[in-house]
Amino acid sequence: MTETGAPAAWWGDLTIAVIGGDEREPEIARLAAATGATVKAHGFPWPAGGVPGVSLEASPAAAAKGADYGLLPIPLSVEDVLYAPHAPERIHVDDELLGQLAAGAHVFLGRATPPIAASAERTGVTLHEYDDDKELMLLRAPAIVEGTIAAAVANTDVTIHDAEVCVVGFGTIGSVLARTLLALGARVHVAARNPLQRAAAHALGARPLELSELADLAPSLAMIFSTVPAEVVGREVLERMTAGALVLDIAPPPHHADLELAERLGLRAVWARGLGARAPVTVGASQWMGLRSRIESIEATRG
Amino acid sequence: MTETGAPAAWWGDLTIAVIGGDEREPEIARLAAATGATVKAHGFPWPAGGVPGVSLEASPAAAAKGADYGLLPIPLSVEDVLYAPHAPERIHVDDELLGQLAAGAHVFLGRATPPIAASAERTGVTLHEYDDDKELMLLRAPAIVEGTIAAAVANTDVTIHDAEVCVVGFGTIGSVLARTLLALGARVHVAARNPLQRAAAHALGARPLELSELADLAPSLAMIFSTVPAEVVGREVLERMTAGALVLDIAPPPHHADLELAERLGLRAVWARGLGARAPVTVGASQWMGLRSRIESIEATRG
Amino acid sequence: MTETGAPAAWWGDLTIAVIGGDEREPEIARLAAATGATVKAHGFPWPAGGVPGVSLEASPAAAAKGADYGLLPIPLSVEDVLYAPHAPERIHVDDELLGQLAAGAHVFLGRATPPIAASAERTGVTLHEYDDDKELMLLRAPAIVEGTIAAAVANTDVTIHDAEVCVVGFGTIGSVLARTLLALGARVHVAARNPLQRAAAHALGARPLELSELADLAPSLAMIFSTVPAEVVGREVLERMTAGALVLDIAPPPHHADLELAERLGLRAVWARGLGARAPVTVGASQWMGLRSRIESIEATRG
Amino acid sequence: MTETGAPAAWWGDLTIAVIGGDEREPEIARLAAATGATVKAHGFPWPAGGVPGVSLEASPAAAAKGADYGLLPIPLSVEDVLYAPHAPERIHVDDELLGQLAAGAHVFLGRATPPIAASAERTGVTLHEYDDDKELMLLRAPAIVEGTIAAAVANTDVTIHDAEVCVVGFGTIGSVLARTLLALGARVHVAARNPLQRAAAHALGARPLELSELADLAPSLAMIFSTVPAEVVGREVLERMTAGALVLDIAPPPHHADLELAERLGLRAVWARGLGARAPVTVGASQWMGLRSRIESIEATRG
Repeated sequence: MTETGAPAAWWGDLTIAVIGGDEREPEIARLAAATGATVKAHGFPWPAGGVPGVSLEASPAAAAKGADYGLLPIPLSVEDVLYAPHAPERIHVDDELLGQLAAGAHVFLGRATPPIAASAERTGVTLHEYDDDKELMLLRAPAIVEGTIAAAVANTDVTIHDAEVCVVGFGTIGSVLARTLLALGARVHVAARNPLQRAAAHALGARPLELSELADLAPSLAMIFSTVPAEVVGREVLERMTAGALVLDIAPPPHHADLELAERLGLRAVWARGLGARAPVTVGASQWMGLRSRIESIEATRG
Repeated sequence: MTETGAPAAWWGDLTIAVIGGDEREPEIARLAAATGATVKAHGFPWPAGGVPGVSLEASPAAAAKGADYGLLPIPLSVEDVLYAPHAPERIHVDDELLGQLAAGAHVFLGRATPPIAASAERTGVTLHEYDDDKELMLLRAPAIVEGTIAAAVANTDVTIHDAEVCVVGFGTIGSVLARTLLALGARVHVAARNPLQRAAAHALGARPLELSELADLAPSLAMIFSTVPAEVVGREVLERMTAGALVLDIAPPPHHADLELAERLGLRAVWARGLGARAPVTVGASQWMGLRSRIESIEATRG
Repeated sequence: MTETGAPAAWWGDLTIAVIGGDEREPEIARLAAATGATVKAHGFPWPAGGVPGVSLEASPAAAAKGADYGLLPIPLSVEDVLYAPHAPERIHVDDELLGQLAAGAHVFLGRATPPIAASAERTGVTLHEYDDDKELMLLRAPAIVEGTIAAAVANTDVTIHDAEVCVVGFGTIGSVLARTLLALGARVHVAARNPLQRAAAHALGARPLELSELADLAPSLAMIFSTVPAEVVGREVLERMTAGALVLDIAPPPHHADLELAERLGLRAVWARGLGARAPVTVGASQWMGLRSRIESIEATRG
Repeated sequence: MTETGAPAAWWGDLTIAVIGGDEREPEIARLAAATGATVKAHGFPWPAGGVPGVSLEASPAAAAKGADYGLLPIPLSVEDVLYAPHAPERIHVDDELLGQLAAGAHVFLGRATPPIAASAERTGVTLHEYDDDKELMLLRAPAIVEGTIAAAVANTDVTIHDAEVCVVGFGTIGSVLARTLLALGARVHVAARNPLQRAAAHALGARPLELSELADLAPSLAMIFSTVPAEVVGREVLERMTAGALVLDIAPPPHHADLELAERLGLRAVWARGLGARAPVTVGASQWMGLRSRIESIEATRG
């Protein structure tokens, strides 16, 4: 995705705080600064050479001070504690931090926990959740799928090429994954509840099946990729898989394949957490594209 | 798509009329008869060896007489005249014909014209339109896309491989077409209004652009495939294309690319009508799958 | 394939004759003239707008007169009669014509017939055959394969997508064809004598088999693509195919699949001749790239 | 690659020793035993559940004793020390070991070092090297390429999708790798010395270039994959790459890309050793297929 055109001049009037996160955030901060905005940062892994145009602040509060926009990470906070595994201290998204922002500030984050939502209300900050954003998910899909492929390679004794595999679920990630597995030469089945998704899987060249048919297919599978946040891949399926087969779960918590059972049954059970942090430069750039167009919409309505 | 399981016994109590249509209808009639139903036919191209289990009737009325279900073609009727290019006479879907059906009959067709809808109401027939059915469109997509590829090959002096091409629109057909063109080695751009569709095109490996950017891209394109029922590919775009480039329109009527202007400008302008009749055995089978599950739903509610 | 760099100045001293051929030759002549050479033409389809930098001559002899290089078409001559289906008269490649060329001239053509070889010897012309050139065949492969796909689409009632198909032979064309059929969603088998080719087909994602296994596979196939100049697809195979299946032969004459028998057995038997003329601009450009590097080699040795 | 037909009865008369190696050898031994042969093993990682039909011997000599065939690993020995990283002791392929084999025994291994070759001559053993076997390399190619993809994913901050990448060399592995990278959505360049290989890369949909053009391309590349056993990717190329770009070398030793220099220049330099051991079940099965057909040839000539 190439960005077209130079950023508008009003970007130069904005102050943006980037707080917390992982290797994606340096790229987000870099691109934010490239618009001409003032960008202050804290709590993400700081590159040895710094980030062009971005100032590293000593505390979350210093980064937030006077900012019109706060950019927080996508991974979920725990209560009011921000996802910031590389930060020197825990970062609390509370009244104190949000109160540092400029009046009428906007904060973007994956999803707001109740304590964060309450603080935002008290401090007059508008929250924007973008974890469910389908456009962003599509832009991140190749990164997630490549990480999934690498996880499958690392955890199998057979090639994906010429293997019988099944993707469970055919949403954004499931469909890109199925296409990629086909391209790698696998014989790909797709189990999905929705007849439309099964028809789309067929158009793609995969073999569609209903969820209820998965247990019958299980004995022939070398790999199952579960992309659905539900325990579709449960006992009935797992018990019929052959020893050493891979069960790779890439759905977000809380509900997912029964990996403990899978392990006890002699399968290779892998929960591919952290795929969202793979290819941070590409994904950070994608996230920034989504953030940028949202900021542009907000500024447009301000007149 | 394989059908699973033997058809239920109640199919043997049904009478089904297949009237009008093209090379798809013999396959539909054949599969309908394979369920055990009584199938009567008129007005489609009759194979030399007949159709197993299907009786050819001398008139539309004879085919319709006493039928519980009437299966009419997808292509649009003109007023009350059925699409039946191979029939010996015009077939009118009027009170006389619909009145032959059994009481409480159901009729499937692509889309009902006002006269047909009025006749159905007068005769107590329930109409089911399935032209817009997205599942069916997905099942037919490979047939339509292969026909599109063949039309492009027949109308160009260059290969699709290594050519710069643009797909306009990224719905069901547009997305399968873009994927196929990429697989054939083209450099594929996708012009779409919807940012979600542009993100999906990017995930696929195509270069997304907004509709407003199409004119700027036009000079570099060897082929444009328009899949949208709107005149997006108009003067501004066509005037900037190079002589001999292909403009292939696969959108249904009425609105589409300005092919007359394209021709006057020295482009190759092709309206790929009739793609829906390509690969009639595959497509007939797909249509039957959709029809079958609808009939099953209706019969289930009858108790 | 982009050409890199501007042509050397010595091209301006050359005279090149382009005689006979089909829609590929205008592109060859155009590119030859773009080097700065003097280019004279006769006997191929002349575009309405002419060919930039190329003079149309009234006779083959006028085109040949004084030329350092003669570029003749790839398709085979019959005795001394050049392949020139659009020429106003038959063109004989005899002492008279070759005698018009400059002393020490070089002539390129697909393959020399005995009378042409004899004339060349008598007139001191060096012949260069390039029909068997593997590089050129690779450059032309996408054009030939796209034409093959279009021929398959035109001659079947089912889609390539989801069809069981077999490519017989795994040379240059066979391997590109198998890859393309896979990309279109077919289940592709590859029958080849050579174990190396079978291993390469497997790496590609196809199912390899020995030629002797083809008859056993035949009943399940919707399409056979024969790329080998030998009657591998004979009675034993054809008799076991199902009615209506496609036998598409794209091997050059003389030996090939037994299409007459195929037709008598109720199969769709197609000899896809003329595929070499498909996408003439792309293919003409490819041929020119091969010709150009050969001319450069010859001129380099002249010092 | 499925094996067709049951093994001939004479396999039951053979004794086969499988000595040294890695996770591939259990699968080789298992398949060897499945023919009915007596199979004795030593020096490879022994699975918890054993290997069906194979006896684990206490020493290399015990495994070799009386065997008609010795199957040694593909990775190179050091002097006379076999590649056997999981063996309890060093295994020497010397007169003592080879002398245990049956008279006229045959030994297969990747490549013979001079001391091994000398021992074989002294003991009357026929050596068969199969490291260079092109068929085997093709059968192993998907495993090697999948491992390469996983290594690239693990060592980059950007996705392969939408990245500008170059494959250097277009042999067996290079061509499968380039095809796979294209399927993953990369923009793929192929640098090759041989014009035939460049033409094949073009047919595949990649952008071919000459080795001399690589330095000019370098600044735009996110990843270089070197598959050639020569230092093509040297200072001139590396100095022009951007910081953080990946140089992944998958060529066998001794000569390869200058990874030390690459690292000093701020690039990510990775030597993907050990790719041959990836997907050991698939690869072991492939190796056995090659070994089996060789053994069959040898036995056929014995009469």
